[in-house]
Amino acid sequence: AQKFSGGLGSKLCGTSLRGLSGKIMSVVVTLTCVTGAAYLTPAALLNVGDAEKSADPAAKLDGDTKTMTFLQEVVDILLAYIVESFDRETKVIDFHYPNQLLQMNNWELQDEPATLDDILISCRATLKYAIKTAHPRYFNQLSTGLDMVGLAADWLTSTANTNMFTYEVAPVFVLLEYVTLKKMRDIIGWQDGRGDGIFSPGGAISNMYAMLLARFKMFPEVKEKGMSSVPRLAAFTSEHVSVVRIKNSQILVSDFFPRLWSNIHFSIKKGAAALGIGTESVICIKADESGKLIPADLERRILEAKQKGFVPFFVSATAGTTVYGAFDPLIAISDICRKYGVWMHVDGAWGGSLLMSRKHRWKLDGVERANSVTWNPHKMMSVPLQCSALLVREEGLMQNCNQMHACYLFQQDKHYDLSYDTGDKALQCGRHVDIFKLWLMWRAKGTIGFEAQIDKCLELSEYLYNKIKDREGYEMVFNGKPQHTNVCFWYLPPGIRYMEDTEERKKRLHKVAPVIKARMMEYGTTMVSYQPQGDKVNFFRMVISNPAATFEDIDFLIEEIERLGQDL
Amino acid sequence: AQKFSGGLGSKLCGTSLRGLSGKIMSVVVTLTCVTGAAYLTPAALLNVGDAEKSADPAAKLDGDTKTMTFLQEVVDILLAYIVESFDRETKVIDFHYPNQLLQMNNWELQDEPATLDDILISCRATLKYAIKTAHPRYFNQLSTGLDMVGLAADWLTSTANTNMFTYEVAPVFVLLEYVTLKKMRDIIGWQDGRGDGIFSPGGAISNMYAMLLARFKMFPEVKEKGMSSVPRLAAFTSEHVSVVRIKNSQILVSDFFPRLWSNIHFSIKKGAAALGIGTESVICIKADESGKLIPADLERRILEAKQKGFVPFFVSATAGTTVYGAFDPLIAISDICRKYGVWMHVDGAWGGSLLMSRKHRWKLDGVERANSVTWNPHKMMSVPLQCSALLVREEGLMQNCNQMHACYLFQQDKHYDLSYDTGDKALQCGRHVDIFKLWLMWRAKGTIGFEAQIDKCLELSEYLYNKIKDREGYEMVFNGKPQHTNVCFWYLPPGIRYMEDTEERKKRLHKVAPVIKARMMEYGTTMVSYQPQGDKVNFFRMVISNPAATFEDIDFLIEEIERLGQDL
Repeated sequence: AQKFSGGLGSKLCGTSLRGLSGKIMSVVVTLTCVTGAAYLTPAALLNVGDAEKSADPAAKLDGDTKTMTFLQEVVDILLAYIVESFDRETKVIDFHYPNQLLQMNNWELQDEPATLDDILISCRATLKYAIKTAHPRYFNQLSTGLDMVGLAADWLTSTANTNMFTYEVAPVFVLLEYVTLKKMRDIIGWQDGRGDGIFSPGGAISNMYAMLLARFKMFPEVKEKGMSSVPRLAAFTSEHVSVVRIKNSQILVSDFFPRLWSNIHFSIKKGAAALGIGTESVICIKADESGKLIPADLERRILEAKQKGFVPFFVSATAGTTVYGAFDPLIAISDICRKYGVWMHVDGAWGGSLLMSRKHRWKLDGVERANSVTWNPHKMMSVPLQCSALLVREEGLMQNCNQMHACYLFQQDKHYDLSYDTGDKALQCGRHVDIFKLWLMWRAKGTIGFEAQIDKCLELSEYLYNKIKDREGYEMVFNGKPQHTNVCFWYLPPGIRYMEDTEERKKRLHKVAPVIKARMMEYGTTMVSYQPQGDKVNFFRMVISNPAATFEDIDFLIEEIERLGQDL
Repeated sequence: AQKFSGGLGSKLCGTSLRGLSGKIMSVVVTLTCVTGAAYLTPAALLNVGDAEKSADPAAKLDGDTKTMTFLQEVVDILLAYIVESFDRETKVIDFHYPNQLLQMNNWELQDEPATLDDILISCRATLKYAIKTAHPRYFNQLSTGLDMVGLAADWLTSTANTNMFTYEVAPVFVLLEYVTLKKMRDIIGWQDGRGDGIFSPGGAISNMYAMLLARFKMFPEVKEKGMSSVPRLAAFTSEHVSVVRIKNSQILVSDFFPRLWSNIHFSIKKGAAALGIGTESVICIKADESGKLIPADLERRILEAKQKGFVPFFVSATAGTTVYGAFDPLIAISDICRKYGVWMHVDGAWGGSLLMSRKHRWKLDGVERANSVTWNPHKMMSVPLQCSALLVREEGLMQNCNQMHACYLFQQDKHYDLSYDTGDKALQCGRHVDIFKLWLMWRAKGTIGFEAQIDKCLELSEYLYNKIKDREGYEMVFNGKPQHTNVCFWYLPPGIRYMEDTEERKKRLHKVAPVIKARMMEYGTTMVSYQPQGDKVNFFRMVISNPAATFEDIDFLIEEIERLGQDL
């Protein structure tokens, strides 16, 4: 079974390859090809299998060689792309409008197969027009960068091609999820890492799980009887949490204000709508100037809701808001949740990773009092997309909430420990393997490696903040040092820098960030998102999550904003 | 920007590599490494970036070489694993109990980083204990096989590392999703491929989306006001749809009956519980002996529900049930849905792919009348996990149902066509890129390639059916030719073959499949799932979705069952 474990490199069908590892590997070639049907081209040969149909042994070898050659060719394309992505001389993006891009290549699906050469061309074209999310000057999203161990792990995951439903079909991955979730709970501060959890397809779904669990905990009958058996519920979250989307899509700026997106409670509202609770049951709590939820307002609103006949069941505190990077005061919030018997959820999709940092984890003090925590390693820990965890303090609740095996006759024997089967905890049936990349990166870096990486990104953002806070032409959106790597600021071009604070000035300032952003994308030199918030016109929201970024990249960003914006 | 487009192969830091493609590539090495900190080991060097900190140019080169060498070494491991996976001499599984496996390797996460060698060892260990889902004799799940183009596409997806939120961050992928969904709607039979859709994290979530849309369509106020604004709803589905899980986890058989799982309406009930509708509102419709929903019973139950004051809002017809592979009569169902104004959903997670086959698509006649269709290319089309589509006939509904940007001041200018931004359609915020593997495979095979692959799997299952239906020692679970690749049968060992049909015989027969399955896994020769259903004791459910399987593999399966079961 382990015949390949010794060496690397390949010897395929008489073709010898000296691998980068410098070792020679001998592979017993058993891949064969489908032949004999009219529709078959070299590409179809890659549907390995069907040895019997091929009378010609040479054809079999041909299929093997083609397969391995093809995969290696794709890998070569990918390795080149990776090198290019980290090259600051390379454009972050080669932007085209949707209709242009649709016409720049033939993307249509055909009845007939393409050649393998065409497939390689398609791979190159896809990468040519992709955003280089690993680029050290790509600051556009909360998820940036590309970790090499994480990438390798994701390639392995694709190759293993299974799902997380049961131990039987994913033995190692299920164990690694178990080990990793326990470690994460331990870091949160739950005793002995006890509790439960799951990796879900993104922070919004993790938050929805939390809301589902909170409702079930308070009203278990809701599972069978639905919301008609339950009083009207109320959920609470800060008016500052996850934005609908960062308003960063325009390339050209019109004469109109672009749409101002509401920044409030995106995923919590989506969850409430889906779960049949209704968006009107999501009550927004005031945040202070730096974006932190005001506990006194939370308490006031809980009382108000109770008075109106609503039952408060869920508070979602945010650890790291999307725009400001603010951390809600978790201890004060947990006191209120306990007082009123409300489930406390911490949405740490963005900020949860700071728990890995001895220097910064105080920002989440009180998180150990939460009933559930969302924590997305695909954001601040640079794990490849996607990797989002929901951690739950109470054991067994997820299973009870989501399991559906209504009838059974006898208890199952215990020769095989079914507690590792995660299928019944999940809303999903099949579930993508999101764990291996996180686990392997953690192995490679150790906890202290993640800590160093996170500390470094925060250091870079502090550097940016210090550099622009008193610099001419800049205005900070809120006072005080950023808590996370978010730095929110306006750049004021000379043309409006000295104008009085009128509506006209606001209107002009509102257009500055979109124009600069559009020019950034045209030049392809860097990308930062911008957006309005409440009554504040468009401002830049800088975030740093890519460990490949450096102080020089921050310097470059400032120079670039000034170069592109000085004529406005 | 395209400096690497010409050649393949690598020349890295003085190390020259002749690639399998036989071409030489020159890569400008710009990757650099983090150095100087105490926690850094070779593994940490893979956090590419931070050129400035390294004074020593040799160290930079070292980081580059290490990175590329490491990735290539992982690829070598993966290529060897792929070759091995298709080798019939290789075990499908090297099974160990959870506690054994936990102890066979050090899986724990540490504070300190591991060495790169350790990382490679971890990769090998992970694959050693993985199920070889590509193995031509792995018949355990609906998703089997490994397509080489699909795999290459998934590797590229990981490398591009972005999400489907907006055109801005995933321009090509968003367009390809658009093109592919349109093509799939066209195949369903909706005029000009019109409509809407999304790739979601699996069939259960796709079905949940459908239920969410159906509810919103009938009661749009539910989004804001929740279920308290809505009368009690009723959803309908066949008692035969998606099983809770295939009961295939035991290795040893106890003296007790194992738990009999309920096979009914798994994802529909999960969806109803989550959406606040409640599982009691899911009404199960009788199926005939072959597993098809009985339309007359549907109509009767709709009327009954109305009489009780429920509002029927959702019928989920199944195209390809998990166990029997049955196709519900869609035309008759759609007549009833129209008559009573109920949303018709078709859960074609398993059977939807038959739409690609001119020979078999009649089994879904009437699908074009559905309001929504779930279709999982990761099942019968062998696209790597995960790849599930929800297709919706009405345009704009998904956006209205799920969007959350409550407030804005002005209409956005139209210089950038925001209709390609999919974020607001989805329940998720970030969304994994599941499209590229399907699109690239479709390119490579053409529609006729998928058709040939699907037809071949159905031919194999017919071959199995014909071979065992009159064979001594076999009994079919239901009469008639299977509609999909599911073949459900009992194997009766000589010891019980001639027993009278008593409870004692049932009890003994119930244990046969688990023991044979356990032995299959011990030998690692093949894997097939088994399960009970209703009052039927454990039977084998054979499915074929791996195009690498052959007639000989079917012959092998029968011989293996008889070899392993003859003493029982």
